[in-house]
Amino acid sequence: MNYEVNQEVTFFGRIDQVNVSTYDSYACNVTCEDGDKVIVRIPESGEVNVNKIYYFETLAINFKDRIHLQASKFQPIAKMDLAEEVKIRLMQAFYTYAPFDLPAARKEIEEKIAQLKSPEIKLITETIYRKFADDFYLYPAATKFHHAYISGLAYHTYSMVKLADGYLKVYPFLNSDLVYAGIILHDVTKVLEFDSYEGSEYTVKGRLIGHITLGSNEIAITAKELGLENSEEAMLLEHIILSHHYYGNFGSPKKPNIAEALVIHFIDDADSKLTVLGEELEKTKTGEFSQPIGVLEKERYLKHKYSK
Amino acid sequence: MNYEVNQEVTFFGRIDQVNVSTYDSYACNVTCEDGDKVIVRIPESGEVNVNKIYYFETLAINFKDRIHLQASKFQPIAKMDLAEEVKIRLMQAFYTYAPFDLPAARKEIEEKIAQLKSPEIKLITETIYRKFADDFYLYPAATKFHHAYISGLAYHTYSMVKLADGYLKVYPFLNSDLVYAGIILHDVTKVLEFDSYEGSEYTVKGRLIGHITLGSNEIAITAKELGLENSEEAMLLEHIILSHHYYGNFGSPKKPNIAEALVIHFIDDADSKLTVLGEELEKTKTGEFSQPIGVLEKERYLKHKYSK
Amino acid sequence: MNYEVNQEVTFFGRIDQVNVSTYDSYACNVTCEDGDKVIVRIPESGEVNVNKIYYFETLAINFKDRIHLQASKFQPIAKMDLAEEVKIRLMQAFYTYAPFDLPAARKEIEEKIAQLKSPEIKLITETIYRKFADDFYLYPAATKFHHAYISGLAYHTYSMVKLADGYLKVYPFLNSDLVYAGIILHDVTKVLEFDSYEGSEYTVKGRLIGHITLGSNEIAITAKELGLENSEEAMLLEHIILSHHYYGNFGSPKKPNIAEALVIHFIDDADSKLTVLGEELEKTKTGEFSQPIGVLEKERYLKHKYSK
Amino acid sequence: MNYEVNQEVTFFGRIDQVNVSTYDSYACNVTCEDGDKVIVRIPESGEVNVNKIYYFETLAINFKDRIHLQASKFQPIAKMDLAEEVKIRLMQAFYTYAPFDLPAARKEIEEKIAQLKSPEIKLITETIYRKFADDFYLYPAATKFHHAYISGLAYHTYSMVKLADGYLKVYPFLNSDLVYAGIILHDVTKVLEFDSYEGSEYTVKGRLIGHITLGSNEIAITAKELGLENSEEAMLLEHIILSHHYYGNFGSPKKPNIAEALVIHFIDDADSKLTVLGEELEKTKTGEFSQPIGVLEKERYLKHKYSK
Amino acid sequence: MNYEVNQEVTFFGRIDQVNVSTYDSYACNVTCEDGDKVIVRIPESGEVNVNKIYYFETLAINFKDRIHLQASKFQPIAKMDLAEEVKIRLMQAFYTYAPFDLPAARKEIEEKIAQLKSPEIKLITETIYRKFADDFYLYPAATKFHHAYISGLAYHTYSMVKLADGYLKVYPFLNSDLVYAGIILHDVTKVLEFDSYEGSEYTVKGRLIGHITLGSNEIAITAKELGLENSEEAMLLEHIILSHHYYGNFGSPKKPNIAEALVIHFIDDADSKLTVLGEELEKTKTGEFSQPIGVLEKERYLKHKYSK
Amino acid sequence: MNYEVNQEVTFFGRIDQVNVSTYDSYACNVTCEDGDKVIVRIPESGEVNVNKIYYFETLAINFKDRIHLQASKFQPIAKMDLAEEVKIRLMQAFYTYAPFDLPAARKEIEEKIAQLKSPEIKLITETIYRKFADDFYLYPAATKFHHAYISGLAYHTYSMVKLADGYLKVYPFLNSDLVYAGIILHDVTKVLEFDSYEGSEYTVKGRLIGHITLGSNEIAITAKELGLENSEEAMLLEHIILSHHYYGNFGSPKKPNIAEALVIHFIDDADSKLTVLGEELEKTKTGEFSQPIGVLEKERYLKHKYSK
Repeated sequence: MNYEVNQEVTFFGRIDQVNVSTYDSYACNVTCEDGDKVIVRIPESGEVNVNKIYYFETLAINFKDRIHLQASKFQPIAKMDLAEEVKIRLMQAFYTYAPFDLPAARKEIEEKIAQLKSPEIKLITETIYRKFADDFYLYPAATKFHHAYISGLAYHTYSMVKLADGYLKVYPFLNSDLVYAGIILHDVTKVLEFDSYEGSEYTVKGRLIGHITLGSNEIAITAKELGLENSEEAMLLEHIILSHHYYGNFGSPKKPNIAEALVIHFIDDADSKLTVLGEELEKTKTGEFSQPIGVLEKERYLKHKYSK
Repeated sequence: MNYEVNQEVTFFGRIDQVNVSTYDSYACNVTCEDGDKVIVRIPESGEVNVNKIYYFETLAINFKDRIHLQASKFQPIAKMDLAEEVKIRLMQAFYTYAPFDLPAARKEIEEKIAQLKSPEIKLITETIYRKFADDFYLYPAATKFHHAYISGLAYHTYSMVKLADGYLKVYPFLNSDLVYAGIILHDVTKVLEFDSYEGSEYTVKGRLIGHITLGSNEIAITAKELGLENSEEAMLLEHIILSHHYYGNFGSPKKPNIAEALVIHFIDDADSKLTVLGEELEKTKTGEFSQPIGVLEKERYLKHKYSK
Repeated sequence: MNYEVNQEVTFFGRIDQVNVSTYDSYACNVTCEDGDKVIVRIPESGEVNVNKIYYFETLAINFKDRIHLQASKFQPIAKMDLAEEVKIRLMQAFYTYAPFDLPAARKEIEEKIAQLKSPEIKLITETIYRKFADDFYLYPAATKFHHAYISGLAYHTYSMVKLADGYLKVYPFLNSDLVYAGIILHDVTKVLEFDSYEGSEYTVKGRLIGHITLGSNEIAITAKELGLENSEEAMLLEHIILSHHYYGNFGSPKKPNIAEALVIHFIDDADSKLTVLGEELEKTKTGEFSQPIGVLEKERYLKHKYSK
Repeated sequence: MNYEVNQEVTFFGRIDQVNVSTYDSYACNVTCEDGDKVIVRIPESGEVNVNKIYYFETLAINFKDRIHLQASKFQPIAKMDLAEEVKIRLMQAFYTYAPFDLPAARKEIEEKIAQLKSPEIKLITETIYRKFADDFYLYPAATKFHHAYISGLAYHTYSMVKLADGYLKVYPFLNSDLVYAGIILHDVTKVLEFDSYEGSEYTVKGRLIGHITLGSNEIAITAKELGLENSEEAMLLEHIILSHHYYGNFGSPKKPNIAEALVIHFIDDADSKLTVLGEELEKTKTGEFSQPIGVLEKERYLKHKYSK
Repeated sequence: MNYEVNQEVTFFGRIDQVNVSTYDSYACNVTCEDGDKVIVRIPESGEVNVNKIYYFETLAINFKDRIHLQASKFQPIAKMDLAEEVKIRLMQAFYTYAPFDLPAARKEIEEKIAQLKSPEIKLITETIYRKFADDFYLYPAATKFHHAYISGLAYHTYSMVKLADGYLKVYPFLNSDLVYAGIILHDVTKVLEFDSYEGSEYTVKGRLIGHITLGSNEIAITAKELGLENSEEAMLLEHIILSHHYYGNFGSPKKPNIAEALVIHFIDDADSKLTVLGEELEKTKTGEFSQPIGVLEKERYLKHKYSK
Repeated sequence: MNYEVNQEVTFFGRIDQVNVSTYDSYACNVTCEDGDKVIVRIPESGEVNVNKIYYFETLAINFKDRIHLQASKFQPIAKMDLAEEVKIRLMQAFYTYAPFDLPAARKEIEEKIAQLKSPEIKLITETIYRKFADDFYLYPAATKFHHAYISGLAYHTYSMVKLADGYLKVYPFLNSDLVYAGIILHDVTKVLEFDSYEGSEYTVKGRLIGHITLGSNEIAITAKELGLENSEEAMLLEHIILSHHYYGNFGSPKKPNIAEALVIHFIDDADSKLTVLGEELEKTKTGEFSQPIGVLEKERYLKHKYSK
C-alpha cells in the first residue's frame, strides 16, 4: 500500500508485533483487512495487545525515509458497538477458524445436554455449560499443538461427541449420560487456562493450577451450590475430568477408574492426534512424508496414493 | 455321578488335566457334557491332550476306594465323523464362546472385503482371508488377556470393523479400503501363533517369529505370488500389520507412518481393553471395584450406579 | 483366659477379623483390653466392623470343643456415652499412637496459624483448619507406608513445621506464611480420603478423586465462600497442594512453580521417609541391616555402631 | 581452476548440491576428479542427482562476474560403457571407501558359506547371498552412524565374522552354521532399505518396512520357493534377523531366544560402536577428548597416551 | 545311613542348615562325604557356620524316635593341618567347581601379566594381583547370578582374556596392556565383597562400598605406595574398574570414556550372560525352552536341534 | 578507554578470550579493573590462560584502524609477590564471589570438626580437611549449575551444616558426628575435579574418575595411613560420600544405606536447588515467571507478590 505523507488513513487492523524503542512512540506491525502490512506508531502512553483487532485513525508520516502511520486514535473492537455482521466479517478476515459447521455443532451439543437422563448429571452439566458457553464457542483447544484456532475447543468437543456415538453402540455397558456430559465438560475450563480466544497465552492460573484441576474445582463448587456435593454424580464427573489425560506426567492426577472415563480418554487422545494428522497431510505432496508431527512423537507420515 | 463297579460307561468329555503316576495307566480329570467331573484312567501307551473333547468307552473300577473309569477306547472328536449339529452341541457344551452373532459378523466382514475398491488391496486381502478363513472364525485372539475364548479373533475383528465406521465418518481423509483390509488382516496370523483354537498355547514359531512378522511374511509371499511384490498396496498393508502395536516393546518394529495404520492402532487398542473391562465389570457388584485388570495396567474399575 | 461354659463375660474388645461361615452366627477374633485373644460369636443378622472397639455382653459356650463367647449385646463405643477418660483409656489400649506430644503439637500448629501475617492466607487456612480440626488430630497420614497410626497426620504435619523453621532461616527469600499455611493444609483432606481414623481404608471418593484434588477443591470452595475466589493467595495455596508430590506419577498434576511449594515438597518427602526409617532402625539389631523399606525403594539400612 | 569465457571444458565430476533458482537453468556445485570445485549450470529440463558421478561437456560463461560452466551434455557414469579400471578410478576419486581388503573379505565370507554343514541353512543362505551379492559389496551399512561409506556393509559383516571366530572357541555350545549364516544375512536387506550405494537415502519401503522385516520376508519367500517353509532352519534364521537389534525400540520385534541370536547381537553391537570409536579417536589429539560420539550415547572418549 | 544308639561316628561333613531350638543344643542338617544326610546336634555354646566343612566326632542318640548324632568335637577343616590331597578331596566332594582347567588358566593369566609392556601398568597390576592371588583362584564371581561357584572369578577372568585376544586382532587401535590388566583387575576385589569363597554372603563392606569402589581404592592406595599416584596409568586403570558395568544403575559411577574400558565392558557383559546361558541350555531338553534366565531379562531360550 | 598510538599502558586485567590468528601474535579480549574492555596482543610464543588475572605492560598500536595494546610483559598474579590487600582487591574486582560471610562460615565449619566426639571420625575428617582447606574456601561447587562462583564449595557446605542442625533436632536417631563430618567431606575433592578455582574446567581426572570416587579414594588412603583402614568409621564416611547423589545415573555407585547418608543426600539436593532458585527469582520481576531453571528440570518459577 502506498500512502503519501500527511494522508489521513482510517482502517481496521490486527496488531502482529509491538516494537519498543527509545522514541516517544513505538512501532507496531499491523495487518490490514486486505492483508496489507503497515507500520503504525502508537504514543508511548498507549497500550495495545498483540493479536487483537483495532480500529485506527492515523496520519501518514515520514519516519527515516519510510512511511509510518501515526495513530491519533486506536480502539479495540471488543469495546466498540459494531453490527454483528461487521464483527463476523472482521473476525473471519483476521483469524483462522476451525473448519467445521459451528451452528450445527452447537445444536448437536445442546441436544446432547437436553437429552441427559440423570437429573443430577444434567443439572451440573447444564449449569457449567451455560456459565462458559459464550467463550466455549470462541476459544481454541490449545495455544499450539492440536486445534489451535478460533473455536478449536468446540470443534474438538463436537468431533468427540460424534466418535462417542460409535463407541456407545459397540459397548452397551457404557452409560451415555456420563460419556456425553464428560466430553462436554472435559476441557471447558480451557477458557480459564488461556487469557483470550485470539492469540492465546496461558494465564498464571492456567500455569499454576491447569484446566484439569480448574474443571474439577468447577464441578465441586457447582455441586455444592446445587446441594449435590455428596452426590455420586458429581464425583463421577469430577473423576472423568481428572483422568482424561490418563497419565500423571500428562497432567492427570488419577488414571481412569470407571469405564466412561477410559472411553473419553481414548476419544480425546484419538481426536487430538487425528485432526493434526489430517491437517499435516493436507500440506504434504503425494508420495512424500510430512514434517515431523509434534503430537505424534515427531513421526513423519507418508501421504500415499490413496490419501485424500 | 455314581457308577457301580463294572458298569460300562460311554460318553463325550473334555480332558482338564492329566496326572502322570507310577501306575501303568494315568488318571485324567474329565468334565462330562452335563458338567459332572469324573476320573478316567488311560493306558500308559495312550496319548491324550488337555482341553480337547474325546469320545470315551469305559468300565467303572474301584481304585483306592474311589470309582475310576478305565478307558478301553478314547478318540478325539476332531477325528470322528459326527453330524454337524452334534459337533456344535459338543463345542458349546465344553468351551466358552465369544458373546456375539458369528454369522452376522462373518457376513459383515465378507461384505467389507467384497466392497473394497482397489483391485490390488482386494486381491491380497481376499487371498489371505480365504487361506485362513476356517481357523479365523474359531481361534481366540489371545491365550490369556483379551478375547481369550473360541472365536475371539473374529469377535475382536468384527468390533473393530464397527468402530472403524465411526472414525471414517469423522475423518474423511482416511482411505476406507486400507482401514477395512488392515483390520481384517491385522491379527489373522494369530492362527499360526497358537497351536489350536481350544486351550491354545503359543507355538515355537509363534514365540520366535510372532504374529506380527508372520502377517508381514504372509503379505510378502502372497504379493509375490500375485505379481504384486513391488506394489504400493502390498507395502502399505504390510506397514499396517507391522505397526499396529505402535511401540517396539509391544512387538511393533515400526510405528505407524500412515494415517490408516494409526487409526487401526487406536481401534485395536481400545477394543482389546474395553472388551475385557466390560467382562470384568460384569463380575463386579455395584458400588465395588473390580479385580486389578491386567490389560489396563492393573487398575481396578468402579462399577458405579450407572454401570449396566 | 479360661472361661467356663455358661459363664457370663462382659468386656471391651477390638474386632481383628470376621470369619464368615455356614453357621447362623459368625466367629470374630477379638482382642481384649489386657491383650488376651478370644473368639466372639455374633448372630448372622448383626453387623460389626473390623478394627473398631465394642462393648460386649456374652455367654461362654462350647463350640467344637473350644470355648467361644456368644454375644447377646455388642455396641461400638463411638455410639456410647462414655466418660472422656474411659474413651482415652480404651483408645490407648487398642490402637497404636503416633509417638509425639499431641497437645504441644496442637499448640504449635495453632500458634503458627495465629501468627500468619497475610489476612487472606490466614482466613483461608483458619477456615479449613477449623472445619477439619477434630479429625485432623485423629487420622493417620496413610493406610500403610508412612505415619500409619492414630494422629499420624498431625505428627507428620508437626514435624514438617519444625523442619520448616530451619529452611526459613537459611533461605530468606521464602515467605513464611505460604510455607506454614501450605504445610498445615497440604494433607488435611486425607481425613476425606480415608473412611475412619482407626484401621483406615480408602473411601471411593479417596480413590477416584484423591486427597490432592480434594484439598484443591476445598480451597476453591472456601475461597469462593470468603469472596477470595480470584485472590492470588487462594491460587498460591492451591498450587502448593497440587504440587506437593512433585511428579505426576505420584499424583501431582503440577510440578512446583513457586519456591514455597518446592520447599514443602522437600520437607514432606524427607519427613515421610525419615520417620519410617527411624522406626525400622528401632526394630533392627546393631550391626545388621533392616528389612527392605517400602518408602525407600526397598533398600535395607544398616544399624551401625553409632545409630541410636 | 581458472577457465576463460567460451573455453570448452570436458570432465568427470560429482554433484554435491543442486541450487534451484528463477533462471532457466540451475547451478550445481560440482567436485572434479582433482578435488577442484566448479559451478555447472544445467538446463531446467535436465535431471541430476546429488552425490552421483557424471560426465560433463560444458562451455565456460560469465554469470554475474563469475565463471560458470554451461553444460551441453551430462551423463551419469552408471549409464556409460566405461572400462572397469576407469570406473574404479572414478569411484575411488569421488567416494569414501571402507578401510579394508575387500577381496580378502569376499573370499572369507564365501568360504564361510561354502563350509556350512547343514544343507538347509546352506541352501537358504547361498540363495539369498547370490541374489544380493553385487550390491552387498557396494552398499554402506548406514546413511549416517556406523560404517557409512562405500562397502560399509561388507566391512561390517567381515569384522563380525572375525569376532565370531573368537566366541565360537570360548563357547562350544554355539552352532557355527547359525552364527555365520546369521551374520551374513543379518543386514543384507539394507540394500533394499537404501536407494543407492552412494549418498544413500532411505527408500519409502525402508522407512515403512525396514531392513529387519525385509530380511525376514526374504527368508520366508526363499524358504517357500525352496520347499523349506516349514523347516526349523528357516525359522531359526528368521528369528536371528528379527532379534539382532535386541530391543523393540531399536527395531527388533523379538528379543533373542536362541543362543546364536544373542551372540550375533553382541557382535553386531560391539562392531558398530568400536569401528566408529576407532575412527573418532583417529581425528583426536593425544591427551584430548573426542567429539561426542552419537552411537556411544554422546560420550566423549579420551585419546590417552597408549592410544594408537 | 543307619546308626545304632550309642554308636560312635566320626566323619567330615558340610553344614547345610542350623536349626535353633529351645533345647540346650541345636540341630544341624549335615551332608556327609558320600552324600548322606544326617542330623548333628551341637551344644548351645558352640558356633558353626553354614556351608563350611567340619570334622565331627559324635555319638548316636535317640531324639524323639529319630537318630541324631550328638557332637563331642567339631572343627572346621580350615583350622586343621590336613594333607593337601585330603583338602582337595574334601573340597571337591562338598562344593561345586567352575568347569575349567584352573592351572591352565592361572598359567595364562600370569603370562599375560608377565608380558605387560608398560612398566607402570605392570607394577600396579602385579602388586594387586599378588596381594589377592590366593583368594582370586577360590572365590566365585557372584553369590548368585553368573559364575556362582568355587573359582568362578578366575574362570570368568580367564574367558574374558580369551575373548580379548579376538577383539585385539580386529581393532588394532586398542592397547593390549590396558585391556589385559583391566580384565585381570576388574573384579579382583570381589574377594573383599564376599565373606568367604564357599557359600558366599555379601560383607557389610561389600554392601556399603562394593567391589567397584573397592577396586578403585585398591589402585589408588597401591599407586600411592608405588609413587605412581599421579600417573596416567593409575588413572586409566581406575577408570576401567569404575566404568566396567557401564550404567550408573548397575553400579558404575562413570561410563567408559576410553576405548579399552568399553571393550572390557562388552566382554564382561557377554561372558557373564553366555556362561549362564550355556549352563541353562544344558538343563533343557531339545525342542523346549529353558527356564526364564535372570541375567537375560527373564527370557526363555530355545534349545533347538542344532544346540549342542 | 581511548589510548593514543605509542602510548605506554600498564594495568591488571582478566583474559576473557584468546583469538588465534595467522599473525605472529594473537589478540586477547581483556577486562580491566575498572570494567573497560581492551584488546591485548600477545606474541605467538607466549602462553596465557583464560579467566586468570595478569599484570600487563603494553604499547598502544594501530591494528587495522583500531587501537590494540601490544604486550611486552604479561605475568599471572599468582606468580607475583603482591601484598595481600592488593590480591583481595584484584580478586574482588575480577571474579564473582559467593554471597556469604566466609570467615563466619570457616569458623562454624572448624568448630563442627572440633566438636566431633568420635576420635576416629574426627581424625579422618580433620586430616582430609587440613589437606584441602586452602582450596576448599576458594573453589566453586560446580563449573556451571549450582554455586558456580568463587567459594561456592564452602558456601554450599556451610548452608548444609545449618540445615543439618534442624534435621538433627527433629530426628534424634541420627548421629551428629557422621552428619557433620559427612557434609564437610562430601564434596571436598571437587578441588581435584576442577583445574582451578577461577573459571574452572573439569580436569581429565575429574572426567574419568570424578569427585565422588576421588573422595572415596581420599578416605581409603587417609584411613590406611592412620591405621584405620578396617575401621567402621572409615567405611561409613566412605559410604556417605559414595551415596550422596543417591542415583547411579547421577554418579552414585551406591544408594544410601545408613540414615545419615540419606539425610545428607536430602540436604545436598535441597541446597543445590534452592540456592539457584533464590538467585533466579532475584533476576525475575514480580508477577512474572523466571527463566527455565536447569537444576529444576527446566521449570519456570513464579515470582509472586509474597516473594522477597
